[in-house]
Amino acid sequence: MATDTRERILDASRGLFQRRGYAGTGIKQILAEADAAFASLYHFFPGGKDQLAAEAIHTSGAMYQQLVEGVFDAAPGLLAGIGACFAGAAETLRATGYADACPIATVALEVASTDEALRQATADVFASWINALTERMVSAGVDEAAATDLAISTIALLEGAFVLSRALRSTEPMTDSGKTAIEAARAAIKRAHS
Amino acid sequence: MATDTRERILDASRGLFQRRGYAGTGIKQILAEADAAFASLYHFFPGGKDQLAAEAIHTSGAMYQQLVEGVFDAAPGLLAGIGACFAGAAETLRATGYADACPIATVALEVASTDEALRQATADVFASWINALTERMVSAGVDEAAATDLAISTIALLEGAFVLSRALRSTEPMTDSGKTAIEAARAAIKRAHS
Repeated sequence: MATDTRERILDASRGLFQRRGYAGTGIKQILAEADAAFASLYHFFPGGKDQLAAEAIHTSGAMYQQLVEGVFDAAPGLLAGIGACFAGAAETLRATGYADACPIATVALEVASTDEALRQATADVFASWINALTERMVSAGVDEAAATDLAISTIALLEGAFVLSRALRSTEPMTDSGKTAIEAARAAIKRAHS
Repeated sequence: MATDTRERILDASRGLFQRRGYAGTGIKQILAEADAAFASLYHFFPGGKDQLAAEAIHTSGAMYQQLVEGVFDAAPGLLAGIGACFAGAAETLRATGYADACPIATVALEVASTDEALRQATADVFASWINALTERMVSAGVDEAAATDLAISTIALLEGAFVLSRALRSTEPMTDSGKTAIEAARAAIKRAHS
């Protein structure tokens, strides 16, 4: 039951930080959404909103990575996996009224110049995503030297497409960016085999 | 003198919104940085922080577009222009301690699901950037049908690279994304001529 409360608080935080950002989310809002008492926040998170945010960033980053790894595992190959990720992101955007996107990007931009501990938490998540995608690129036949560059720009395409798709309320940026990501990966595989 | 105060308030807002986001920027902070009195804020911006944010978004979006158009105009061609934009962004990130990036992205993500008027302001800016870059793509020989897709994914690469570079405090994402943007444009020009 106690663990439930902790999880409910974290869950509410992840959702609110994703949709409203860090500064735009109040402790009261988190507790109301989690149906939790003020005392339980400081019981489970003695460091307050900052500690909560760091845990929310790490756990939502890991959950999103797990989701994306599942999409890749289910796809018949790297290019199909990239296509399925961008298509899935587009579908989620549409289904949620352009609310559900990257779980940490809003907070990442907010804290990059204002909160070093939280900036580091977002950096840890992005580094983990980049490493995982780099490994998949190498397994698919991309040169090791080129694989990291390709993984980084693929994630940049996804992140940038989230910004544009949410602002424009259109899945077009996600679709276009997915095509560019597939083409870049196809070209890198071809270069490695030539 | 009165106009100076108005410009100082807008100027301070643009800088603070870019670095700290919308919710993370307080009116007091804006006025302190602008060296302006509380009364002048509501004199020049009767709509308060919301009106100020809308004007900051529109004007900083236009200023950034003008800067980028200047970079393209000075470059010997489209591919060199794309390269110069990403290199310039990387240099600005490094020179400002990873603070100066896209002037509107942080606010765009914060307001996308919370403030329809400000969301529309960010959409106007992105649409203007996409149109301007699409025209340059067409002038450089890209098929009209492909030019918009390419312009959108080029801007997505830039936006995503800002997220990753700021979080990781590294220019590598900007450099990698610039390479991918150039390759995508080169391939599109080649396809149009084949």
